[in-house]
Amino acid sequence: MNKDKPVDQNDALKQAKADFAQVRNEIDSVDQQLVDLIAQRQQLTAKVGVLKATLDLPLYVPEREQALIAKNRELARQSDISPDLVEDVIRRIMRDSYANQDRTRSQVSLSQSKRVVVIGGRGQLGSLFVRLFKQSGYPVEVVEKDDWDTSDELLSKAEMVMVAVPIRITNSVIKKLTKLNKDCLLVDITSIKDAPVKSMLNSHCGPVLGLHPMFGPGIENLAKQTIVVCQGRDADKSKWFVELLKTWGAKLALVNSEQHDRLMAIVQVLRHFSTVAYGYHLKEENIDLDKVLELSSPIYRLELIMVGRLFAQDSELYSDIIFSNKENIPMIKRFLERLLTLLQMLESEDKQAFAQLFNDVSHWFGEHSDEFLQESNLLLAKASDIRT
Amino acid sequence: MNKDKPVDQNDALKQAKADFAQVRNEIDSVDQQLVDLIAQRQQLTAKVGVLKATLDLPLYVPEREQALIAKNRELARQSDISPDLVEDVIRRIMRDSYANQDRTRSQVSLSQSKRVVVIGGRGQLGSLFVRLFKQSGYPVEVVEKDDWDTSDELLSKAEMVMVAVPIRITNSVIKKLTKLNKDCLLVDITSIKDAPVKSMLNSHCGPVLGLHPMFGPGIENLAKQTIVVCQGRDADKSKWFVELLKTWGAKLALVNSEQHDRLMAIVQVLRHFSTVAYGYHLKEENIDLDKVLELSSPIYRLELIMVGRLFAQDSELYSDIIFSNKENIPMIKRFLERLLTLLQMLESEDKQAFAQLFNDVSHWFGEHSDEFLQESNLLLAKASDIRT
Repeated sequence: MNKDKPVDQNDALKQAKADFAQVRNEIDSVDQQLVDLIAQRQQLTAKVGVLKATLDLPLYVPEREQALIAKNRELARQSDISPDLVEDVIRRIMRDSYANQDRTRSQVSLSQSKRVVVIGGRGQLGSLFVRLFKQSGYPVEVVEKDDWDTSDELLSKAEMVMVAVPIRITNSVIKKLTKLNKDCLLVDITSIKDAPVKSMLNSHCGPVLGLHPMFGPGIENLAKQTIVVCQGRDADKSKWFVELLKTWGAKLALVNSEQHDRLMAIVQVLRHFSTVAYGYHLKEENIDLDKVLELSSPIYRLELIMVGRLFAQDSELYSDIIFSNKENIPMIKRFLERLLTLLQMLESEDKQAFAQLFNDVSHWFGEHSDEFLQESNLLLAKASDIRT
Repeated sequence: MNKDKPVDQNDALKQAKADFAQVRNEIDSVDQQLVDLIAQRQQLTAKVGVLKATLDLPLYVPEREQALIAKNRELARQSDISPDLVEDVIRRIMRDSYANQDRTRSQVSLSQSKRVVVIGGRGQLGSLFVRLFKQSGYPVEVVEKDDWDTSDELLSKAEMVMVAVPIRITNSVIKKLTKLNKDCLLVDITSIKDAPVKSMLNSHCGPVLGLHPMFGPGIENLAKQTIVVCQGRDADKSKWFVELLKTWGAKLALVNSEQHDRLMAIVQVLRHFSTVAYGYHLKEENIDLDKVLELSSPIYRLELIMVGRLFAQDSELYSDIIFSNKENIPMIKRFLERLLTLLQMLESEDKQAFAQLFNDVSHWFGEHSDEFLQESNLLLAKASDIRT
C-alpha cells in the first residue's frame, strides 16, 4: 500500500479502535500501580500511628495536614495536573490513614491513666467513648440500668464518671451521683447543656464538664469531629480529659451552657423539626419517590436524602432533642410567621417584595454565601462522583 | 552497648523520633510517585477522549465506568486495602478525565451537523449549550434581545431553535416563533414545562421538545447531569438531538409536562420556598453565624451551607421558579398545615403522637431511608475530608 495514499474512512476507524483498546490496557496498568502505591502508603501511615502513640502525639494535627496538602499541590503543579484533584485524592487516602492509626493506637498504653466509669456505656455513643478510653489504655467500667444497685463502690472509686444516657433520663441519673469522690471529674454528653450542667453542679462538689458531641454514633473515629465543651467547675482538673479528646482527633468549641442551648434551638431543634415536617409532607402528598429520584440532579437528590436519612434513625433521639429544648415552641412559631410573610408575598404576586427580602438576607449572609456556594459546589461534585 | 540491655525510656523516644522522620520521608516519596501516576493516567484518558470523538462514542458510559470500578475494587482486595478507598480515588480521577475529554472533543467535528439557533445564547445556561454545540462541530448562531428585529432570516433557515430565556419571558418569545421551517426542531429549557410545551405546539407546526436541565450554569460538562425530557411532537425528528445530549454525557428522564410540573412543585418550589424562609429566619434571629459554624459538625454545616448558597445566586431565578408554578400556593399551604400539626404535638407535649407520625413516615420511605442514610454518611465523610 502506498504510504502517501490517503487512508480511507474504514482504515481510520479500524486504527482508532485498535488504539482505543491499547490505551485502555495502559490505563489498567496504571491503575494497578496506583493501587500498589496506595497500599504502600497505608503501611507507612500505620507505622506513623504506632509512633504517634509512643510519642504521645495527637491523631490529627491540622498544621501537619495543611503542610502535606500544600506540598502535594505543588507537586501537582509541577506535573501540570490539577492541584484540586491531587488534594482530593490525598485527603481521601488520609481519611483511611486516620482510621488505621486510630486502630493501631491500642497497641500502646499511656503512662497516666485514670479509672473511668461510663454510665450508659453500652449505648450507641457511650460505647464509642468506652472503646476510645480502652484504646488509650484507660481502665473503663460500664454501668447500665441493671447494675445500678451494685455500682456504689465502683462509682466512689472512679476518677472520672461520664453520663451517656438518653436526654429524658439524664437528670434523674445525675441526681443519684451524690457520693462521688470530691476529685472525681463528672462529665455528661447530653445534647442540651444548661440543665445537665446545673444538675451536675448540684449533685457533685468536684470538677464538672458538659460535652455535646456534634456527631452520631456512626463515625469511625473522632478525627475532625466537633465536640462542644461547656465548663462547669474546676477547669484545671478536667484539662487532662480535654487534652485526651484532642489526642483522639476532636475539634473542641468552647461556649457557656446557656449560649449552647440558644444556638442549638436553631442548629438542631428547628432543623430537625422542619425536616420531620418535610418528610411528613412527602408522605401525605404520596409523591412517587422513585420518579423524583430519577428526575433529581445531585443537588435535589442531596436535599432529599438529607430528609430521608432522618427516618432511618431512632425517633426517640429526635423527639428528645426537639421536646427538651426550652426555646423550641417560640422559635418554631417565629419561623412559621416568616413562612407566612413569604406566602403573603406569593399570594399577592409581589415579586418585588420577595426580591427585596432575598437581597436583605443575601446581604446579611455577606461573604459567607459565596463561600457556601463554592464549598457546596465542591461537595456536589463529589456527590456526582458516586452516582452512576 | 550490650544488645540485651533494656533500652531506657529516653533512648526509646529518641529512636521513635528518628523513625518518625524516616517514615515521613518515605511517605513524601510515595506521594511524588502517586502524583506522577495520576499525571500519566490523565494523559492516557485525554487520548481516549479524542478516540471517543473519532468513534462517535458517548463521553460517559455507565457500564464501562462500573466495570472499571469493579476491576479496581478487586485489585484493592488483592492488595488488602479498602475497596471503598480505591473506588473513591478512581472516581475522583475519572471526574477530571470526563472534563478533559469534554474539552478535547472539540478537536473533531461530526459529519451530520445542523444549523442551530440559541435564543438567549449569551445567558448563563444558553451559553453552556452554545459551547457544547460548537464543540460538537455544529454551526450555532445566537439571538439576543437586541437582534430580534434582524433575525427573521436566521430563524427561518434554522434546523433547530433552542429557547434559553428567563421563565418570565419564555412565553412571549415562543409566541413570536411562527415562521420557522416546518422541519425545524423547537426546544425550550425552561424549568416549568406544561405552559412552554403547549405554547411551542401552538406557535410551531413542526417537531417540539421540552427540556428541563436539572442543574445550574456552574457545571463544567454534562457528564452524569440529569435533563428532564418532555415530548411535544414528532419524537422521531428530535431523536438526533436526544442522542447528542447522551453523547455529551447527560442522563435523560422522560415524563410528560403535567407530571413534571406537579413533581417540581415539591422538588423545586417548596424546597426553595422553605430555604428562603429559613435564611430569612436566620437573619431575623440575627444568629452569630461564625459561632454556629464553629459549633457545627459536618452534617449541620452541610445543612447551613445549602441554605446560604441560595443567597449567593440570582434572586430572579428563584422567584421565577417559585412564582411561575401553578401548584405553588396550595402546595405551600398544605406544608404549613403539616408544620402546625407537629407544633400542636409539641405544645401538648405529646411525644407518643410524634413517635407514631415519625414511624409512619419512616414506613412510607421504606428501604429508601436506610439507603439515604448510608449514601449521606458517605457524602458527609467526604465533606469531612475537606474541612480542616
